[in-house]
Amino acid sequence: MTLVACIGGGQLGRMLGLAGLPLGLRFRFLDPSPDAAAADVGELVVGAFDDPAALARMAAGADVVTYEFENVAVASAVQFWALPPPRALELGQDRLVEKQLFRRLEIPTARFGSLAQTGLPALVKSRRLGYDGKGQRRVEVDEQLGGHELAEEIVPFERELSIIAVRGGDGETRFWPLSENVHRDGILRVSRAPAVDAPQAEAEELARRLLDELGYVGVLALELFEVEGRLLANEFAPRVHNTGHWTIDGAVTSQFENHLRAILGLPLGPTEAISSSVMLNLVGGVPPIANLLGIAGAHLHLYGKDPRRGRKLGHVTLVGAEESTIAEATAMVDAAADG
Amino acid sequence: MTLVACIGGGQLGRMLGLAGLPLGLRFRFLDPSPDAAAADVGELVVGAFDDPAALARMAAGADVVTYEFENVAVASAVQFWALPPPRALELGQDRLVEKQLFRRLEIPTARFGSLAQTGLPALVKSRRLGYDGKGQRRVEVDEQLGGHELAEEIVPFERELSIIAVRGGDGETRFWPLSENVHRDGILRVSRAPAVDAPQAEAEELARRLLDELGYVGVLALELFEVEGRLLANEFAPRVHNTGHWTIDGAVTSQFENHLRAILGLPLGPTEAISSSVMLNLVGGVPPIANLLGIAGAHLHLYGKDPRRGRKLGHVTLVGAEESTIAEATAMVDAAADG
Repeated sequence: MTLVACIGGGQLGRMLGLAGLPLGLRFRFLDPSPDAAAADVGELVVGAFDDPAALARMAAGADVVTYEFENVAVASAVQFWALPPPRALELGQDRLVEKQLFRRLEIPTARFGSLAQTGLPALVKSRRLGYDGKGQRRVEVDEQLGGHELAEEIVPFERELSIIAVRGGDGETRFWPLSENVHRDGILRVSRAPAVDAPQAEAEELARRLLDELGYVGVLALELFEVEGRLLANEFAPRVHNTGHWTIDGAVTSQFENHLRAILGLPLGPTEAISSSVMLNLVGGVPPIANLLGIAGAHLHLYGKDPRRGRKLGHVTLVGAEESTIAEATAMVDAAADG
Repeated sequence: MTLVACIGGGQLGRMLGLAGLPLGLRFRFLDPSPDAAAADVGELVVGAFDDPAALARMAAGADVVTYEFENVAVASAVQFWALPPPRALELGQDRLVEKQLFRRLEIPTARFGSLAQTGLPALVKSRRLGYDGKGQRRVEVDEQLGGHELAEEIVPFERELSIIAVRGGDGETRFWPLSENVHRDGILRVSRAPAVDAPQAEAEELARRLLDELGYVGVLALELFEVEGRLLANEFAPRVHNTGHWTIDGAVTSQFENHLRAILGLPLGPTEAISSSVMLNLVGGVPPIANLLGIAGAHLHLYGKDPRRGRKLGHVTLVGAEESTIAEATAMVDAAADG
């Protein structure tokens, strides 16, 4: 039986497992937490991500090694022939290198570099290890940036979009419809897909340049700003992505299943939406599940994690729902969420 | 966290687990086999179904006990307050009692009883413990039946149909669209749903009588013959059912999720089909999965079981597929199947 090893055992690993068990796959996860969310769907190796012995235990006998977060050490990914290709990790882990890659591929971005290059006000971000809005600040007056920092122009975008793409080892590439995303305090709250009146072809073209350049295998997410009808790339994630969770219930094949198909050399599944979907993240708190399940067409996904402020505990996807139903569900989710 | 204990850890338990983990449920299964298919999605207690100590270990701390096969000892089900209600087990375990129940509820059946009552030829079945065509024979000439046997009229049915129903503890009842089923050597091979031009309202009325009589909670399957435009009840199963597997990919809510919702007192989900579905059982052998996944819209469900003649190893569901695609998939599945 095919064994998939995964660096990281959070909710993304858990959903990979739920997608992969019906394909006859088995899973082994490496995670520092003995309560890792993915432990319900596979074997768990408890250990640090940089512990060579733990990494070796995770990978022993595996048919393929993958990862579910982008701060995996490149050397570890290289050592175990991980997919997606470690080069995607390497280029994505440094915001400056990532933006330079976008520029080289003629993928438009907001201005970036020093404050002189961006103008003021600007967002100043850590070049490394930022996520969910951590490690960034708004700068109004000129200052000296550290070498570990990068300034980015604040663009007055109309909306945030993302495209989830999957590429097989043979170069076949498929795209899900663009989703429109709303963040609060730097944490994703809502994704709607397919995004209405969205520049799908343009987004696919930008993502395709990136995938081909990286010789990519697996699922990749490209986050975009829409500004005056143009797309600007914000960042990419070389993994399954929160803005693609709607695909579990709302697309013919989910991002999780297609990621597994890609890294195992299996044919990719269709990426069409089956209806319109709205995904609501459950952050910090979960409404009574009887109330959530009382909403017609609500699909609940809990990650088996203990509540904690700012923590993603699950999500709900409404497929083909009326706006009034979406409003009801949103109010319910917001009332239970922290912040 | 809510713990569901399940008597039996085969593929039905496995699919209950896959449906329940996203609802935040945990599972514990009792099965005599250490290789039980459900072990990938929950804790496994290895023991005989009639071992009191093993049953107690399975049920310890569980919020609800359910079962995934109909030959559970009624006393065990009663002891652990299992759902569906043990009375459904009791009445369903003896074919004669089951048919008498149908008669009492004015649910039409083929003639049954002695060979004098059915006429010849007839099917003679064990009253107890028959499944997948085992324990039955065709009788052409008169003979003396044993007390453990029951004769049934052979009806020249046009097709076999089944209706999957779910009833909550509050009496709310929902039905999935009828599926049309094809058996070979007594083993289900194909289900198509929604069945074309099917008497949905009539089937719902028959199933509803049964559910209400039993004070039922959970999913129940009622197998029917269509004969000259009339429905005759064949048998019911007080559990999730092979002819309802198409609901995982082809309905808004699957039979597995709604079974769990029902036994936990949660609101039931919509049972509408999202498209037309064809489910093909993988019996005895599995085609190369790259070939199966190369069929557009094919959803694969493997149970993690070793191949063995006559064994159900998985199923494939095609959603919204063209007839030519269905034919291609059927040929592929047939070529790999035994028999």
